[in-house]
Amino acid sequence: RIDGKRLWDSLMSMAEIGATPKGGVKRLTLTDLDRQGRERFRGWCEALGLTVRVDAIGNMFARREGRDPTRLPVLMGSHLDSQPSGGKFDGALGVIAGLEVMRSLNDLGITTEAPVELVNWTDEEGSRFGHSLMGSGAWAGIYPLEKVYGLRDVEGVSVEEALTSIGYKGEVPAKPFPADAYFELHIEQGPILEKEGKAIGIVTGAQAQVWYDAVVTGQDAHAGTTPPSARRDALVCAARIIDLVDRMMRARGEDGRGTVGQLHVLPNSRNVVPGEVRFSVEFRHPDFAEIERLAAQFPREAGFIARDCGTPLKLEELFRLPAQPFDPGCVDLVRQAAARLGLPAREIVSGAGHDAVYVARSVPTAMIFTPCKDGLSHNEAESIEPGEAEAGCQVLFEAVLARANR
Amino acid sequence: RIDGKRLWDSLMSMAEIGATPKGGVKRLTLTDLDRQGRERFRGWCEALGLTVRVDAIGNMFARREGRDPTRLPVLMGSHLDSQPSGGKFDGALGVIAGLEVMRSLNDLGITTEAPVELVNWTDEEGSRFGHSLMGSGAWAGIYPLEKVYGLRDVEGVSVEEALTSIGYKGEVPAKPFPADAYFELHIEQGPILEKEGKAIGIVTGAQAQVWYDAVVTGQDAHAGTTPPSARRDALVCAARIIDLVDRMMRARGEDGRGTVGQLHVLPNSRNVVPGEVRFSVEFRHPDFAEIERLAAQFPREAGFIARDCGTPLKLEELFRLPAQPFDPGCVDLVRQAAARLGLPAREIVSGAGHDAVYVARSVPTAMIFTPCKDGLSHNEAESIEPGEAEAGCQVLFEAVLARANR
Ligand SMILES: NC(=O)NCCC(=O)O
Ligand SMILES: NC(=O)NCCC(=O)O
Repeated sequence: RIDGKRLWDSLMSMAEIGATPKGGVKRLTLTDLDRQGRERFRGWCEALGLTVRVDAIGNMFARREGRDPTRLPVLMGSHLDSQPSGGKFDGALGVIAGLEVMRSLNDLGITTEAPVELVNWTDEEGSRFGHSLMGSGAWAGIYPLEKVYGLRDVEGVSVEEALTSIGYKGEVPAKPFPADAYFELHIEQGPILEKEGKAIGIVTGAQAQVWYDAVVTGQDAHAGTTPPSARRDALVCAARIIDLVDRMMRARGEDGRGTVGQLHVLPNSRNVVPGEVRFSVEFRHPDFAEIERLAAQFPREAGFIARDCGTPLKLEELFRLPAQPFDPGCVDLVRQAAARLGLPAREIVSGAGHDAVYVARSVPTAMIFTPCKDGLSHNEAESIEPGEAEAGCQVLFEAVLARANR
Repeated sequence: RIDGKRLWDSLMSMAEIGATPKGGVKRLTLTDLDRQGRERFRGWCEALGLTVRVDAIGNMFARREGRDPTRLPVLMGSHLDSQPSGGKFDGALGVIAGLEVMRSLNDLGITTEAPVELVNWTDEEGSRFGHSLMGSGAWAGIYPLEKVYGLRDVEGVSVEEALTSIGYKGEVPAKPFPADAYFELHIEQGPILEKEGKAIGIVTGAQAQVWYDAVVTGQDAHAGTTPPSARRDALVCAARIIDLVDRMMRARGEDGRGTVGQLHVLPNSRNVVPGEVRFSVEFRHPDFAEIERLAAQFPREAGFIARDCGTPLKLEELFRLPAQPFDPGCVDLVRQAAARLGLPAREIVSGAGHDAVYVARSVPTAMIFTPCKDGLSHNEAESIEPGEAEAGCQVLFEAVLARANR
C-alpha cells in the first residue's frame, strides 16, 4: 500500500510554495514560484533515481524504467501551477500522488513490466495566458508551438519569454510520443461525490467548452459633462453582455455553465466614462451540440447589444473543445481498483478541463476523482481530508500497476 | 494684453511632463510626475519674484504683493494633476493662464491695489484617492485633514505618505484664509460653447453630485464545475447595478449623469466565478433635489439586485455636493470683461466639479470657460486652439485686475 502520511507531508510541503495568507496557493504558471515548485518536484524525483526530462513547452517527465524494453510507458500526472487565488490540491494532488506511487514502487521493490512516467504539465490553469491545458495542448499538437510561444499575459510577457526566464524551455520536442496509457488523479472540484458519500469518482469523460476574448470600444469622456445621448460607455455594454452570458447559462438548466471571470476597464477612473473594456467569456456543457449552439448564438446576441450601445465589440474565439470520452479499458481499471479496495465509487463526467482531455486524443486515458469540501475549488478555501487523498492515491497506484504489468 | 504665444509655449512645456503616446497627459496627483510639474511651476513663479508657500495638503500659493497692505488677496488658479488618460488642458490651462497673468502684470509694470495669488490645488481629479476636489476641499474645511491624510489609493498608499514622498506636505495649515475673490479659468469639458460658437462661458455655478464606493461579495468558484444554482457571482451582480446606474441616469433626461468609471474584479481569472467586485458610482444633476432623490433610490434598488443575486452589497457614500451658485459680483466681472473684449459669450452651468465649488463656500468666486474640441475631456484627445486659450486668459487678466484694483 502507498504511504498516506508521506503523501500528505509532500502535499503540504509543495503548498508552502506560493502559500497565501488565507490558506490557499498562488503559484501562477511560469513565474518564479512555479520554478520553485518545479525544482522541489525535480529534487524529489531525482532522489528516487528517476530521470527527468523537460520538453519545449516546459512539461516535465520523470521516468522509471520497466523490465521489458519493448513496452510503451504508462503515464500518470497532473499540474503544479495554480489559480491566482487557488487551493493546495487542484493539480498538486495528481502530481504528488504520482510521486507517492513511484516511492511505493521503490519501497516495495517492484519492477513493472512497462516503464512508468510521471508528468507535470505546464500551465493547466490558463489564467495567465488565456489557454487552459496549454502544456498538454501543445504536447498533443492541438496548439502549434509557435502560436503558444507568442501568447502574452496582461503585462505583455510571452510564454516563450516566461519559459526562458525560469529556465524551463527544454530540449525535448513538445509532441506526443507513443504511450500505453495515461492516468490522472484530481479533486472533483464540484459537490457530487461529497453529497453522495463517494470516495472515488470514476471519470468517464469531460464536458465541452468554448472560450472567448472580448473587447468593447467606447469613448473616454467626462462623467460630469457628457450627456446620456453623447455617451459611448464601454462598461455599460460589457455589463449587458455579462448579464447575457448568465441568462444563456441559466436557459440550459443545471448543466449549463457560462462565466465572465476576468475583466479590465480603461482608463478605470471614477469620473471618466469608460472608453474600453476587455473581458473573458466561457461556456461549458456536457453536450458538444449545445456548445455549438451557444457558439452560434452568443456572438450574434452580444453583437446586437454592442450595436444598441454604439460601442463596437471585437470577439475572438480562443478555443472550442468537444466533449472527450475516456478509454473504456483504462476507466475499467479505475473501477476495478476502487471495487477491490472496497471504496464507494460512482461514474462522473468532469466539469473542469484537465490535461487528460488532450492526452486522451493520442493515448488511452482515464481519470480518478476524489471529493473536496463543499465542492469548492479555484478558491483558497479548497480543502480535502488526508484519508481522501490516500484513497485516491491507492486507486492510482493499483490502476497504474495493473496496466504496467498487464 | 497678455502674450498668447508665451501662454501656449508654457502650456506645451507643462504637457511634456507625463506626456502619453496618444498626445495626452498622465500626471496623477502626488506621483513623481506631479512633483516634476510642481517644480517646473514653482521655478516659473520664483523667476517672476513671486513667493511660493505650500500648505499641509500640498496646495501651492504664489503671491504677488499689492500696493495696499490692508487689502485681501485676489486669488486665481486651478490644478496641475490629471486623469490617468487625461488631456493637456484640464486644470493646466487655469494654472498656466494665471502664470501668464502674473507675467503680464510684471511686463506692464502694474502694481495692483490688492495682492494677487496664484493657486495650484492638490488632487482635483479624484481618480487616485476617490475624492475629487480634495485639496480645495481640505482647504475649505469640508474634508477634515486627518480623514484626507488617511485616504488610500488602490495600491494602499495613503495621501499623507504620498505627500511626504514627493516633499509637498507643507508647513502652512490647510484652512481658508480671508480672500477678496477667486477666479478660475477652465476648459468647458462639454460641447455647448463649441456648438454655439461662443469663445467664453460665463459660469454661473456648478451642478450637484453624489459619489459612492461599492463592494459586492460573492464566492470564488470553479467556472466549469459550479452549477447555476450554486453560483454567487459578484460580477453578474455588479453588471446589473451598472445597468441600473445607466437607466437611472437616462430616466432624468439629458440633464442626468450616472457613471461607473472604475471597477476591479477578484480574483480576475478566466475560469473562476468572481468572488468580489469593487467599483465606483457617481450621479450628477443641476438640481440638488434630484441628487437627493437619486441618493435615496439608488442604495435601495441596488440592494434589491444584490439580494436577488445572493451577493451582499456594501455601499459607502463618499461625498454629496449640493449645486453651488457663484458670486454675482465676480460673475459680472467676467461678463463685463468678455463684453469689453468683444468676445461672444454665454452663461453656463458647470457639469464638472471644480476647486472653485469649494472655494466659493468662503470666498466670492467665479469661473471662465473656454471651448474644447468636440466637448471631449478626460480623454487624451482633449484639444483647444491657441486663440481660445488666449481669449480665456485675457478675460481672466481683466477680471482679476478689475477686482484687485476696485
Ligand atoms: N482542473 C482545472 O481547474 N482546470 C482548469 C481549466 C478549466 O477547467 O478551466
Ligand atoms: N474639472 C474636472 O474634470 N474635475 C474633475 C472632478 C469631476 O468633476 O469629476
